[in-house]
Amino acid sequence: MTDKTASNFILKPIGIIHSGFRTTAQIRSSQKVRGEIEVYPEYEPGLKDIDGFSHLFVIWGFHLSDEERLTAHPPYYPRQERGVFATRSPRRPNRLGLTVVRLLKREDRYLQVKGLDMAEGSPVFDLKPYIPKDQIMEAEFGWLDNVEGEETP
Amino acid sequence: MTDKTASNFILKPIGIIHSGFRTTAQIRSSQKVRGEIEVYPEYEPGLKDIDGFSHLFVIWGFHLSDEERLTAHPPYYPRQERGVFATRSPRRPNRLGLTVVRLLKREDRYLQVKGLDMAEGSPVFDLKPYIPKDQIMEAEFGWLDNVEGEETP
Repeated sequence: MTDKTASNFILKPIGIIHSGFRTTAQIRSSQKVRGEIEVYPEYEPGLKDIDGFSHLFVIWGFHLSDEERLTAHPPYYPRQERGVFATRSPRRPNRLGLTVVRLLKREDRYLQVKGLDMAEGSPVFDLKPYIPKDQIMEAEFGWLDNVEGEETP
Repeated sequence: MTDKTASNFILKPIGIIHSGFRTTAQIRSSQKVRGEIEVYPEYEPGLKDIDGFSHLFVIWGFHLSDEERLTAHPPYYPRQERGVFATRSPRRPNRLGLTVVRLLKREDRYLQVKGLDMAEGSPVFDLKPYIPKDQIMEAEFGWLDNVEGEETP
């Protein structure tokens, strides 16, 4: 086994998001948003057996984000500056996004899903099944517990 | 806003895992494994407000994995070949790992956590809070529902 260094982590998209959100302003974080994940032909064999899982993690890239900040101002009242690792802000080191989607249907290399919160054309770097150890029933949500109104996560 | 291409996703580690697992054979996927996430000094401001969250997602790199396969043989009976995106196998395109950890304590730029399943020295690329929309109570687990015995996820 070769001990590769971290410098080898140059990501290649395995697919692309089709959400219809052409700008970041259009994006609504909603479990109801339907769309498609197109997996590139060379990666299609990796989709075998994915159908049985109801939910998938998508690791993807905030390709419209041009800044890597260490703090963020999440859009909840009261608006306060937070450490970026305590938020899901797109302006973050490495600009990686993580979204759980509901898998509705697989058609060859196209996955029909619900719960997209990415812009059209976002690169997809990985898909993983949502498994029992991802279900944290007793989680506590820090500063999010004190936000009011609107569309909370 | 600049439209960056996917080729800009060259990951820089924001920290490193201290799990004590020196080889992949030692790794036990257990929510009881305690260890530390060391965040590099330049990223410490990003940890503000993280303390209130009980659980975090860690996006990290399988730095000991030297292969990117499209299928995997998960270590469960009956042993069968699965599409890699229907598994959490380390031998996968882009070699990214995803783990939910319990945050026990933050001490400056060190996070004491439980639930590590990474090798010592694994690079950390992102930390995100586990939030309500990550709690999928009704998830279905595909082929995993039919595996028997041992240490199932």
